[in-house]
Amino acid sequence: MKKMFKMTTSRAKRFLSKLSFNRGLIPVVTKDSRGKILMVAFMSRKSLLKTLTTGFAHYYSRSRRRIWMKGEESGFRQRVLEVRVNCENSSLLLTVEQEGPGACHTGYTTCFFRRLDPKGRLRETERKKFDPEKVYTGGLRSKH
Amino acid sequence: MKKMFKMTTSRAKRFLSKLSFNRGLIPVVTKDSRGKILMVAFMSRKSLLKTLTTGFAHYYSRSRRRIWMKGEESGFRQRVLEVRVNCENSSLLLTVEQEGPGACHTGYTTCFFRRLDPKGRLRETERKKFDPEKVYTGGLRSKH
Repeated sequence: MKKMFKMTTSRAKRFLSKLSFNRGLIPVVTKDSRGKILMVAFMSRKSLLKTLTTGFAHYYSRSRRRIWMKGEESGFRQRVLEVRVNCENSSLLLTVEQEGPGACHTGYTTCFFRRLDPKGRLRETERKKFDPEKVYTGGLRSKH
Repeated sequence: MKKMFKMTTSRAKRFLSKLSFNRGLIPVVTKDSRGKILMVAFMSRKSLLKTLTTGFAHYYSRSRRRIWMKGEESGFRQRVLEVRVNCENSSLLLTVEQEGPGACHTGYTTCFFRRLDPKGRLRETERKKFDPEKVYTGGLRSKH
């Protein structure tokens, strides 16, 4: 198991003060250690602080208006390995170790399991890895 | 050179109607064909339509409140190779062929050229590939 990325609250707060949040949120891309892009989501200051101090990815759900820890229901948590910031301090790139079979609440490894073809159709490019009905029982189906 | 992704306006519009925009914008992650994540930005409906019908990535600048074609000033355009959409139709993943030495307006291949260390310092992990002073002359230094 690779080393988890973690920092103290005071260091995390200092880092946060450098970032540019838009309406309290910053976009985050999350990839696994093999380079597969798993998802795009948003973090609030509070959820980023939790992420940095616990080592587990926490996002902010715009639809549910609350912080959620990735995997809080499914158990498929994301252990943070690396944090990158873009040139303008306005977006983040996380490398994580994805626990369980996948990151997507619909049952796939990645949320980006569909490719657009030039005719406008969406083509699934990977197979389902788990049955979301069995994993999510509390109705938390919309994760973003 | 790989085949550019392009579609007709009517097909592109049909695809757009399926997407979930937030305040008129959708977040986009852009990677190159080797899998390197180059940037995160936003697209408006209009800029996405331009992207899909021309084959060159067009984004929406929230600070400048206008559409910009990536490379319009630098010449470092992004030829779209593949378009992916996430499970909730609320974010996009583009694979592009990046023209020129890099995507970042500060002179790097990727906007994510800095890694956070646990002490809170930002460490540059790659070298500058071009001199932005020579490439950007019109003052369009903030790209997002």
